[in-house]
Amino acid sequence: MNGAQSLIRTLVRTGVDVCFANPGTSEMHFVAALDSVPEMRGVLGLFEGAVTGAADGYARIAGKPAATLLHLGPGLGNGLANLHNARRAHTPVVNVVGDHATHHKKYDAPLESDIDPVAGSVSGWARRSDRVAEVGADAAAAVAASMEAPGQVATLILPADASWDEGGQVAEPLPSRTPAAPGPQTVSSIADILRSGEPAALLIGGPACREPGLLATSRIANATGVRALVETFPARLERGAGLPAIERLRYLAEQAVRQLDGVKHLIVAGTRSPVSFFAYPGKPSDLVPEGAQVHTLADPSQDVVAALEALAEQVAADTLPTLAEPALPSLPSGPLTANNWAEVVGALLPAGAIISDEANTSGAALPAATVGAPRHDVLTLTGGAIGQGIPVATGAAIAAPDRPVVNLEADGSAMYTISALWTQARENLDVTTVILNNSAYAVLRLEMLRVGADLSGPAAKTLLDLSSPDLNFAKIAEGMGVPSSRATTCEELAEQLRRAFAEPGPHLIDAVVPPHL
Amino acid sequence: MNGAQSLIRTLVRTGVDVCFANPGTSEMHFVAALDSVPEMRGVLGLFEGAVTGAADGYARIAGKPAATLLHLGPGLGNGLANLHNARRAHTPVVNVVGDHATHHKKYDAPLESDIDPVAGSVSGWARRSDRVAEVGADAAAAVAASMEAPGQVATLILPADASWDEGGQVAEPLPSRTPAAPGPQTVSSIADILRSGEPAALLIGGPACREPGLLATSRIANATGVRALVETFPARLERGAGLPAIERLRYLAEQAVRQLDGVKHLIVAGTRSPVSFFAYPGKPSDLVPEGAQVHTLADPSQDVVAALEALAEQVAADTLPTLAEPALPSLPSGPLTANNWAEVVGALLPAGAIISDEANTSGAALPAATVGAPRHDVLTLTGGAIGQGIPVATGAAIAAPDRPVVNLEADGSAMYTISALWTQARENLDVTTVILNNSAYAVLRLEMLRVGADLSGPAAKTLLDLSSPDLNFAKIAEGMGVPSSRATTCEELAEQLRRAFAEPGPHLIDAVVPPHL
Repeated sequence: MNGAQSLIRTLVRTGVDVCFANPGTSEMHFVAALDSVPEMRGVLGLFEGAVTGAADGYARIAGKPAATLLHLGPGLGNGLANLHNARRAHTPVVNVVGDHATHHKKYDAPLESDIDPVAGSVSGWARRSDRVAEVGADAAAAVAASMEAPGQVATLILPADASWDEGGQVAEPLPSRTPAAPGPQTVSSIADILRSGEPAALLIGGPACREPGLLATSRIANATGVRALVETFPARLERGAGLPAIERLRYLAEQAVRQLDGVKHLIVAGTRSPVSFFAYPGKPSDLVPEGAQVHTLADPSQDVVAALEALAEQVAADTLPTLAEPALPSLPSGPLTANNWAEVVGALLPAGAIISDEANTSGAALPAATVGAPRHDVLTLTGGAIGQGIPVATGAAIAAPDRPVVNLEADGSAMYTISALWTQARENLDVTTVILNNSAYAVLRLEMLRVGADLSGPAAKTLLDLSSPDLNFAKIAEGMGVPSSRATTCEELAEQLRRAFAEPGPHLIDAVVPPHL
Repeated sequence: MNGAQSLIRTLVRTGVDVCFANPGTSEMHFVAALDSVPEMRGVLGLFEGAVTGAADGYARIAGKPAATLLHLGPGLGNGLANLHNARRAHTPVVNVVGDHATHHKKYDAPLESDIDPVAGSVSGWARRSDRVAEVGADAAAAVAASMEAPGQVATLILPADASWDEGGQVAEPLPSRTPAAPGPQTVSSIADILRSGEPAALLIGGPACREPGLLATSRIANATGVRALVETFPARLERGAGLPAIERLRYLAEQAVRQLDGVKHLIVAGTRSPVSFFAYPGKPSDLVPEGAQVHTLADPSQDVVAALEALAEQVAADTLPTLAEPALPSLPSGPLTANNWAEVVGALLPAGAIISDEANTSGAALPAATVGAPRHDVLTLTGGAIGQGIPVATGAAIAAPDRPVVNLEADGSAMYTISALWTQARENLDVTTVILNNSAYAVLRLEMLRVGADLSGPAAKTLLDLSSPDLNFAKIAEGMGVPSSRATTCEELAEQLRRAFAEPGPHLIDAVVPPHL
């Protein structure tokens, strides 16, 4: 058995059986080894950002990591932005980066570069696996490291000779540390704060954004009056009819400050104390109101659901949660606007959908339009590195082949990793992509105002404008084998969505919407 | 004047007046400042790989750097692969990476990441410019560093507050060190070797690949019988009728070994001793024949053209160079093959063309088909990180608006940075892209055989296959505003090339060719 075979067999034994890959010459023995381990599914991406984003989306839904396969330093660079998002999502990823054979590195061949510090910038764990007999054990360690609460990117750098040499050994899975619940004193002291009657907010994140955590949070809020909030960009948020609808902390610092106004105690559970996404001249970065105290019920590495349930037990033993009623928006009519498209989506969202949400500025109306829709998951842009939405939708669809995936995607963001559409076509994934095509980097027009920069000049305007020429996403997607259409009215969008949801396989709708600004 | 204005004014004063940009919030003051310095041309890319590759292509033709503008660590990551290629090309690039405001970094906001080590992996010079009064001076230092022979990526990390704070100061250009010619003893000792009659090869690279270096090399070869070779992947190679046609060292190590067979002395000038691109089991990485001695006439940081001319003066004072005769291939007919498309290009290549060559395995017939074509430049894939061709063509066209640019582009490589086509449309650049669409990662099929991996299994085959679905590049390009067509015969390719060369602005031809393997 060569090293590559020991690696793949070990991954399969630990439950990692999907590998998103964009290989090169130094990874050819890994590719060849796939045929000796048929339990491993190799999924080709045409660009590494598609690969790493798919691994992120897969794990957010599957609850276990996928492997990646990247080619040397440049391949890692191409995948770095979506690894950054995975890092911020606390997503477990087993990130395999091929390298030149060990004896070849000193020759500084054209593709030689310093991989380790680049890997270090996104990885919670990294190891160079340069002895064939250890490759299996290193793979088992990588899987365990990736799963360590709250989850992280574990990078295994695999020299070509460690891959092709004989002497590989399959390793047994390593036990994963389970996250510990916070001690009873922590819970009691926070229960005391909630009983004090002082204005308080409870900001939840991470695994608390799924049903058990949401139920406990809603009960706590109903019993104590604490203002419950979900972190701004949860990795996976369960929503819809029958679940508590807990407001999200807003992206815009000005709005977040209003949501937290008057709070004396901010309790964080499964997330961190909130900070402004960007700095703005003369504005604070810390969003905690002046004079308020921050209390940690559970940090992201702890068992936040157990902590919330213990807290609910103390302060809300007899209190029920508030659940969203089933309620669909009426289908709007007429030309698409920056907001009404969300009502069309809300009216037609299939049961059990997974929404990959990179709608950005076009997405303001989405939460209200889907609050009473059938139960669904929302995967958000956790790290702010745009180009996440299409790859994450791709990976989520691999993880949940029986669930419809809906990717709500801003035009500017779509162009970073557009080739992931091809993987959707090749794998016949049930993904409906709606491009919110407003012909602008609208978020930057907004941010330019917020940072106090002057956008009135033609040079600045040009750099935020995506028209001239307009992007026709329907044509682009057809070129990659994804059936596509364009919608300019609510009626067209509704008809095209119905068709996309009814037919198997991927579809793309290029929804032409006016910009906010 | 704020820091951003001082930066841009300093760049313009040093002669850097094009900025390829994909900005975000932390770069908004830079964007706003463009309107106060109209001499600086901002060119928008929809993805950072397009930005950095364009900066590379621009400088290879302009002979001076462009600036980039990238957004934080993820933006740098997206641009890393083409910065790697620029590093290997010794291209001067002033790589500006925006960062969070200094006071914001400690909050570890979602887009925070460790930029410096990532920048370090591709930059010969890097500096964090965190004091507004120094931004201008740092910019002048970056320009000078980028131009230091043989040229390099100089990264300036620019915190948002250094950009928006008032107190910026424009700096004067710094003198650039000119490369020194090697000493007369070095030249004389190599002249002695050439006169000894022992079998020798002269491998040239870098600036030696332009007319003066080629002329000197041809004279030396004619006078001494030394075997002249051009490095495998020159940044910019001048070719065509009226210039010496010097054979390139082959990419495949097996072929390169044959080219160097029997050589007792290998003289390198402006490049390094040749090594295998990848390692292969049981094969040497060093391509220098056993027992041969390597002699350096000029290393890449020295004045290689002066060195070659001094050597020619000693050994070939009365010898003329051999110049390629004007000679065009006949136009072939019938279905396109992996080779005959190159004859169509060779037959129709316009005078003064710039070829951005990322044809990879489909490009084997290109050198012979263009050797007697009108004089042209060839820009090659210097660092092996695919996805270079479209961006480099884009930048080259900005640098030379009066020259036709021809981008010969493999299908797999095209998909990494396909969005650069949109920039060609927006800027109405005279670029003709020919996609060699063989529906495969053909280079990997070849490499799989070479590394001795077994490609017979279906899983491995699937990961090297780009059909199912086939990519339709004509549709993709039309979606980005580039007029496009498909060609399956030589006649169609010829007709479409003629039209593309005759009309201003960008065109794309999706040339469907069979794979080699």
